[in-house]
Amino acid sequence: MKNIAYIENFEDWANSFTYSYPVKVRFSETDLFGHLNNTKVFVFFEEGRIEFFKEIGVMQQWLTRGGEGIPVTSDLQCNYLRQIYFDDRLDVFVKIHSIGQTSVDLHYLIKNQHGDICITGRGRMVQVHKKTGKSIEWDEVIKNKLHSSTTSANI
Amino acid sequence: MKNIAYIENFEDWANSFTYSYPVKVRFSETDLFGHLNNTKVFVFFEEGRIEFFKEIGVMQQWLTRGGEGIPVTSDLQCNYLRQIYFDDRLDVFVKIHSIGQTSVDLHYLIKNQHGDICITGRGRMVQVHKKTGKSIEWDEVIKNKLHSSTTSANI
Amino acid sequence: MKNIAYIENFEDWANSFTYSYPVKVRFSETDLFGHLNNTKVFVFFEEGRIEFFKEIGVMQQWLTRGGEGIPVTSDLQCNYLRQIYFDDRLDVFVKIHSIGQTSVDLHYLIKNQHGDICITGRGRMVQVHKKTGKSIEWDEVIKNKLHSSTTSANI
Amino acid sequence: MKNIAYIENFEDWANSFTYSYPVKVRFSETDLFGHLNNTKVFVFFEEGRIEFFKEIGVMQQWLTRGGEGIPVTSDLQCNYLRQIYFDDRLDVFVKIHSIGQTSVDLHYLIKNQHGDICITGRGRMVQVHKKTGKSIEWDEVIKNKLHSSTTSANI
Repeated sequence: MKNIAYIENFEDWANSFTYSYPVKVRFSETDLFGHLNNTKVFVFFEEGRIEFFKEIGVMQQWLTRGGEGIPVTSDLQCNYLRQIYFDDRLDVFVKIHSIGQTSVDLHYLIKNQHGDICITGRGRMVQVHKKTGKSIEWDEVIKNKLHSSTTSANI
Repeated sequence: MKNIAYIENFEDWANSFTYSYPVKVRFSETDLFGHLNNTKVFVFFEEGRIEFFKEIGVMQQWLTRGGEGIPVTSDLQCNYLRQIYFDDRLDVFVKIHSIGQTSVDLHYLIKNQHGDICITGRGRMVQVHKKTGKSIEWDEVIKNKLHSSTTSANI
Repeated sequence: MKNIAYIENFEDWANSFTYSYPVKVRFSETDLFGHLNNTKVFVFFEEGRIEFFKEIGVMQQWLTRGGEGIPVTSDLQCNYLRQIYFDDRLDVFVKIHSIGQTSVDLHYLIKNQHGDICITGRGRMVQVHKKTGKSIEWDEVIKNKLHSSTTSANI
Repeated sequence: MKNIAYIENFEDWANSFTYSYPVKVRFSETDLFGHLNNTKVFVFFEEGRIEFFKEIGVMQQWLTRGGEGIPVTSDLQCNYLRQIYFDDRLDVFVKIHSIGQTSVDLHYLIKNQHGDICITGRGRMVQVHKKTGKSIEWDEVIKNKLHSSTTSANI
């Protein structure tokens, strides 16, 4: 397998995901080369990440109008291992890799309907203040939810 | 030319536009059939319309956070007369067709770099209250700006 | 209900759909006004239409590399009756309204998770030659499949 | 400045770009958090990269139908340093960082209209066979063009 900086042992890494979200490739997501346009993978990352955040119970707070903190993308990385085509049924796997004071590192893995690994990725989300853009520390509630999700995933 | 309900005399209609905004077709806007994906035309309509609204001086108010009214799409129509391809340089023509108490009807015309008419369209924008969603009458300032733009266009 | 040119009796029309495809609104499909961006509705129309074509068995032929004919959008219309928001679960209803020698007219209806009608639409697809762009008559196989689908929908 | 793995000296790096392509942020590219949606940056990377490839004269060959090789994305990285908003006028800087037998590493830098650095990025493009997906070595013509562009950029 490819040598990817954020992955130590590829097989162990690929097997460490427990959460996934299904996505089907739309016609409008292809390009004239006949495959999924490379930019659309990040739409799948975002959708998978939000569904994951909903699953572990931290998304609601960010969407509430009263909430001051919003999660923004700090960085993203993506490795394209295999081409993806129109109508492919993908599973977007998401897991927490590490948790900081104001941020969380997520890892991503996308498989097609044949079980082939097509995409790997990672990226950091940071909680910032909606108005000032300054980073905000996780409160205890969110921190606990983030930590429990990694624990349960490791069992 | 095609028989299109919102166009009386095609040649007169096509010649009645005075404002246009240039757009170049992106790779990510094509699809596997090798042409511009049909859904992207509405992105061009939106971009052309917003630039037109900026040109006639009504856009700023809608973007101000204090403003209560926002313009929303009430309906859209699009006729695809000629295929559009990657890297085509398009001119998106926009004009006001008619002005209501709370709405404005816009017409659209898209030509490619050869001067061929590729797309015609129309659609109504309605000003609604950001919170309640109820329609709001144009104030005198906006109304005057909308009317002047049609007058000048007709000269 | 709104007066929409392509709908005679709104209630009858809304009840005449039998096929629907589920779509969930992505975060990346919203805009800064806090709702679904108007241009994304046509992505849902396209996805609903393709799934409908797969359901009635005509899509495969168009995707085959050997096939000469491809379906292209001839026109589209959309009426926005109610705002759509992030994470809304939509049902995209699609039905055949009429069948021509080289074309088919489709009608669309989108409801949200509360059963509210948010969007109505229609549009014509035309089968054209992949290379020449000239319209091609339906062959008997496709024609029969299109007709059976309208018949069964009317029962 | 942030510690970014692919950047040694941030100031030197930022000053080493000579090619840029202008992009304006569309309304449909924002999301409900009121800023540019994170996934759209990769659309700007793609547009900037293609314009850069056209500028140095290697794009035409990839778009020719006869050509067997097409450039595909092997990996992408993006760091979000500053938020980007609707209507921002961006400059997308692109340069070649290194050239392999079948691939090329590109670096990206996006500044807004105030000259603020908003985005940095990098990614590898690989030339693959359209049908087999196997990587193809650059021919001499393309290789020379890639190399000249880096030389001239360093002057």
